Amino acid sequence: MVKSSFIVSTAVATLASLASAQTFQRLGTCPTLGCILPPDQQDFLAGQYFDIRLEVHAPVNGSEATDGKPDEGFTFSIGKVGGKAQSAAEFFGVAEPELETWDFSWYEDLFAVDAETPSVVNVASKAYRRVALYEPGEYEATLSYNGTTTVASWLVRDLSEVRKAKNVLLFIGDGMTTNMITAARLIGHKSVNGRYQSLMAMDQFPTLGHQMTHSIDSFITDSANSATALYTGHKSTVNALGVYADSSEDPFDDPKVETIAELFHRIHGGHIGIVSTAYLADATPAALTAHTRDRGEYGAVVDSFIHGIVNYTWTDWSGPDVLFGGGAEQFCPPSLGGETYMNLNYYNVFTDAGYQLAQDNTSLSELSDSERALGVFSISNMAKWVDRNVYTKNVQGNEDAPNCSGGDADNQPGLKDMTLKAIDILQNRATADDDAGWFLMSEAASIDKMMHVLDYDRALGELLELDDTIKAAMARLEELGELENTQIVVTADHGHGFDVFGSADTKYMNAHKNPRVKRNSIGVYQESGLSQYINTGDLTYGESNFPSNWDPRYTLAQGFGANPDHRENYQIHKDGPRVPAVNISGFDEDDFFVNPEDAKSGFIINGTLPTSADQGVHSLTDVPVFAMGPCQELFGGVYSSIDIFYNIATCLGLSRTSASGEDPNNYDKGYGGKFHYHHYTEQSPKYGPPAKK
Amino acid sequence: MVKSSFIVSTAVATLASLASAQTFQRLGTCPTLGCILPPDQQDFLAGQYFDIRLEVHAPVNGSEATDGKPDEGFTFSIGKVGGKAQSAAEFFGVAEPELETWDFSWYEDLFAVDAETPSVVNVASKAYRRVALYEPGEYEATLSYNGTTTVASWLVRDLSEVRKAKNVLLFIGDGMTTNMITAARLIGHKSVNGRYQSLMAMDQFPTLGHQMTHSIDSFITDSANSATALYTGHKSTVNALGVYADSSEDPFDDPKVETIAELFHRIHGGHIGIVSTAYLADATPAALTAHTRDRGEYGAVVDSFIHGIVNYTWTDWSGPDVLFGGGAEQFCPPSLGGETYMNLNYYNVFTDAGYQLAQDNTSLSELSDSERALGVFSISNMAKWVDRNVYTKNVQGNEDAPNCSGGDADNQPGLKDMTLKAIDILQNRATADDDAGWFLMSEAASIDKMMHVLDYDRALGELLELDDTIKAAMARLEELGELENTQIVVTADHGHGFDVFGSADTKYMNAHKNPRVKRNSIGVYQESGLSQYINTGDLTYGESNFPSNWDPRYTLAQGFGANPDHRENYQIHKDGPRVPAVNISGFDEDDFFVNPEDAKSGFIINGTLPTSADQGVHSLTDVPVFAMGPCQELFGGVYSSIDIFYNIATCLGLSRTSASGEDPNNYDKGYGGKFHYHHYTEQSPKYGPPAKK
Repeated sequence: MVKSSFIVSTAVATLASLASAQTFQRLGTCPTLGCILPPDQQDFLAGQYFDIRLEVHAPVNGSEATDGKPDEGFTFSIGKVGGKAQSAAEFFGVAEPELETWDFSWYEDLFAVDAETPSVVNVASKAYRRVALYEPGEYEATLSYNGTTTVASWLVRDLSEVRKAKNVLLFIGDGMTTNMITAARLIGHKSVNGRYQSLMAMDQFPTLGHQMTHSIDSFITDSANSATALYTGHKSTVNALGVYADSSEDPFDDPKVETIAELFHRIHGGHIGIVSTAYLADATPAALTAHTRDRGEYGAVVDSFIHGIVNYTWTDWSGPDVLFGGGAEQFCPPSLGGETYMNLNYYNVFTDAGYQLAQDNTSLSELSDSERALGVFSISNMAKWVDRNVYTKNVQGNEDAPNCSGGDADNQPGLKDMTLKAIDILQNRATADDDAGWFLMSEAASIDKMMHVLDYDRALGELLELDDTIKAAMARLEELGELENTQIVVTADHGHGFDVFGSADTKYMNAHKNPRVKRNSIGVYQESGLSQYINTGDLTYGESNFPSNWDPRYTLAQGFGANPDHRENYQIHKDGPRVPAVNISGFDEDDFFVNPEDAKSGFIINGTLPTSADQGVHSLTDVPVFAMGPCQELFGGVYSSIDIFYNIATCLGLSRTSASGEDPNNYDKGYGGKFHYHHYTEQSPKYGPPAKK
Repeated sequence: MVKSSFIVSTAVATLASLASAQTFQRLGTCPTLGCILPPDQQDFLAGQYFDIRLEVHAPVNGSEATDGKPDEGFTFSIGKVGGKAQSAAEFFGVAEPELETWDFSWYEDLFAVDAETPSVVNVASKAYRRVALYEPGEYEATLSYNGTTTVASWLVRDLSEVRKAKNVLLFIGDGMTTNMITAARLIGHKSVNGRYQSLMAMDQFPTLGHQMTHSIDSFITDSANSATALYTGHKSTVNALGVYADSSEDPFDDPKVETIAELFHRIHGGHIGIVSTAYLADATPAALTAHTRDRGEYGAVVDSFIHGIVNYTWTDWSGPDVLFGGGAEQFCPPSLGGETYMNLNYYNVFTDAGYQLAQDNTSLSELSDSERALGVFSISNMAKWVDRNVYTKNVQGNEDAPNCSGGDADNQPGLKDMTLKAIDILQNRATADDDAGWFLMSEAASIDKMMHVLDYDRALGELLELDDTIKAAMARLEELGELENTQIVVTADHGHGFDVFGSADTKYMNAHKNPRVKRNSIGVYQESGLSQYINTGDLTYGESNFPSNWDPRYTLAQGFGANPDHRENYQIHKDGPRVPAVNISGFDEDDFFVNPEDAKSGFIINGTLPTSADQGVHSLTDVPVFAMGPCQELFGGVYSSIDIFYNIATCLGLSRTSASGEDPNNYDKGYGGKFHYHHYTEQSPKYGPPAKK
């Protein structure tokens, strides 16, 4: 979750930046006063649709003050490096867009926030909609204004158009780091004299890589712009889904980039599945079809799942084959307490379009594999593995039934149930559709959500559930004869600065009152000992690897460098997900202190985050990428998050070096049977069709 | 650095464990009362020398109390699985060892420490010295005592004997994690709109893996047993170098395992180089030649560099070609304030054996490439990159000259200087020695040492220096025509739970007094902004990538979950390495509080570690492995730390499946020219020679 306490009046100040500014930026992608979006140094898939936004800024006051009159006569040209530059309208064969103007304000730093002295910027702008670059190579885009220029270098990657994978299964462990995988292995797998007797499924993948997760204009990312990078090959700004963030007030007019789901559907008629344990409008599922600067536009996000983009000409989209997760509050109409786009009942919207509906684990299992399916299993985020399987009373009494009846969602599926059913439906439908192939994104969302609230046990439970899901999915693909045709990628979208540093003797901690003595219960190095979570309790899960005891005497001593005020006793929170910090009545509502009800037997640790934070935050670390199947060799080593997109796209044969050449009868039959490819039907363009370059 | 506050009288209590114990263990590798070392589940390189220690425990009191009389008539047999078991003496063709007896005591938990009620254990024991297993496959070793048995399964790995690499260059970033590499990249490399304009050298290695670092009997490791795993293929106990830890009082009688340096020297006459920025007796350099349970036996460690093992028959060893680092206090005799083994002047010991001596960067550069060389450049650990290059006054006035004269070591080389000179000497000498090849271990020790004291800036400076050294070493190998013949591996021995979670506006922090307001200077997510360390200052370093400004207004907000009490202002410590916590007079000497002199403009954070800790500790996380050159394909994916040893050993062709077959004229000429191999001259065995199996 992303909090921002410094929004000012007319527009989105937190999106903006002075060249020398840091905490706040006028517009992060625009250090000068002339802005091109996509900005300098961006990569493109050949034939990928995108919009262009140009802005000329004229600051009225502040350290960059001008006369406040942006040059409305700015011009914009584009050309291949070494070739002839043309006006963009000519280059793309479109009409010149109309001029737009607006203003926004932002704070130059924290002193300006305290002094309430915003800086105001007047803007002149144009936007080119749904264009594409086909010919691989370097391009130069030039914005000329006020006698000066801003130049953006763009690179269309030269990728093979040969399809090598029939299907793609992308697992995202939200917020999952190598450190967390190490900890999950320790509590879920037995070790004898330094040798693990079993390993995580992801440990056994043949290829390992690291991806750099930073956003385009800040080094810490959120899940919206990181998902955008993974799905589109374009890094963006915090909170942005499938767009580059501009400075206008409208969160739906930012320049878009086409996603892997849209591309695969458009070019090959690929079948799409979306599965998450979060509410479905959350960033990671949302970024497959939504295009908005503001991930908080939840209603519009859910609408985009079935209708795609309707305010501008874009690619055709009529919904995924599978959409499973939580978040009934964006499906139930206001009459049932929901908050939906246009006040619609989105259950009806989906079923009217022919979707089957499941609202619990039983009805999920009964879905036909032949028809499209929507599954919404709870209000908000779904129940956690630990609560569904160990402390089961916690799924009672929450009044979170997905039909918004006020009942309990006490029969929720897990990530494994949802993912296996999604594979069955996708496989069945794609096979019937001339073997078009499928793309499934399956997200373990609450690794992140539980790490945010410092609930390490639940987070690691979610991670083990993800791993169990990977193992089960591979077995199902093997049964279906699709394992070797399917590119499987397991990765994360960002980290949290988590690690384990020892063990805690909870008996000793709980027996003492002095906080300094409690700290002496921590055992480090040789005194960390061995994991007491495994094979010391009564819990067993068949072939799956989870702790046999979640509440041993000796627990993991673990945590973050970034915390709100909180208290630690390093013991599982048996009554449900943790709430580490709360507002204590009498203080400002954004001033959080230790929750007096949390971890009562522990010792207090004062926070390192702004006091407006009631939970932890994301971190910088590169995150791991595990790959198996077609094109696995592309995923080794260290690279940018955007490379995940290009690796998947080239393996699916989605690069198109000419607009007329979109006949992809180049599938490598070595990976599957006979395929017929669906061709995109050109829509009548609003701002002009993608031109062949 | 490892601290232990709970040592009891007669022996090493912290080495020991009750089956159910955790903080303390009777003997971590021995949950029953019959102990075999190497224990169950250990792997071996075919032909690798090792010792065997057997112990029968008879607890006198405590939860495992017996009659206190260990079965002195215990027997020990060994056989291949599926074959016939023989007594060990028969199996190895050696005389039956003599019986040894002793006792030791340990505490079962923290309550027992407080109550001062140790548990005492009587022990009967035998040790078989310098044996080897040659035939690949599974073995079963059985200790029979008191009518019961302890069984150990051992695996001799079936590895190719074909040599594929001529040289090995092993870089160890002590304590280096993926998180730290990400942070170092951020402060040392420029990024434009989300695309790095340059990358770390290690980022560009073709193969990436993760190694699991845990020790054999605790999940958090120190640098001694982790180095043992990397160099011998055998995980061990905290503080142990090249041995399995037994329970006897003598730290030099524990069962040994042969190291990669000893093997390469013995089998191929390979030339060995050891370089570290630590004092040379520190664990990571020490573990190449030392064999002791106690890494604190510094004098003996330094003696082992040149004399090898002298108390038991072992492999011959007469010193490495190159030994460069700090730690003059173990070289200068007591008359000059040193503390040396047998009170010797170790400078004389080395020069008498024909070593050249360098004691500063100038004399280092003047060393001949033809003769062996010792370089000792400071008392204790060497100066940090930041102090040598930015805050240079900090290398003055430390009275740390390596000749123990009381002068300053103000002309110290860096890791790059030492490593390049080491390569030149090794290459020159190995070439002259019929192209025998070389193995160089180069350690960036103070990544760890500076992370321990929460001095993030200096730690990241050391990491960037390591990366700069890797880049320079690759260039040198290319010049020498050896790049393609050299296996280069970059890894770490363990982690620290470090990460970056945002930026800090130090101007705002320093301007406010209220600690809660100071915390509001932290910018997270979009407010983290971009790195201000690069291209915002005046510092430049030619082709090397380091920050251009170490003291920007907007710094990294970073840290650990495991801390002593301390204060944070997220600003560089300009007066030298940080001291976060101190003992305040009037309190127990092991009770540490915030250092009142440290980070005065910051806010206080109370610790999460035992109050006896004055610094941070190691963490659980898997650490990265970057590999390039011969056998690089072995290093992908996730594996145990011991696999690094097996990958290097097999690439050097060190596996020997018969004692008589030690003629390794099987070098793959594709990687080099003509080689003649040195053969090990059999020593007269004390406990019996390795038998052919």
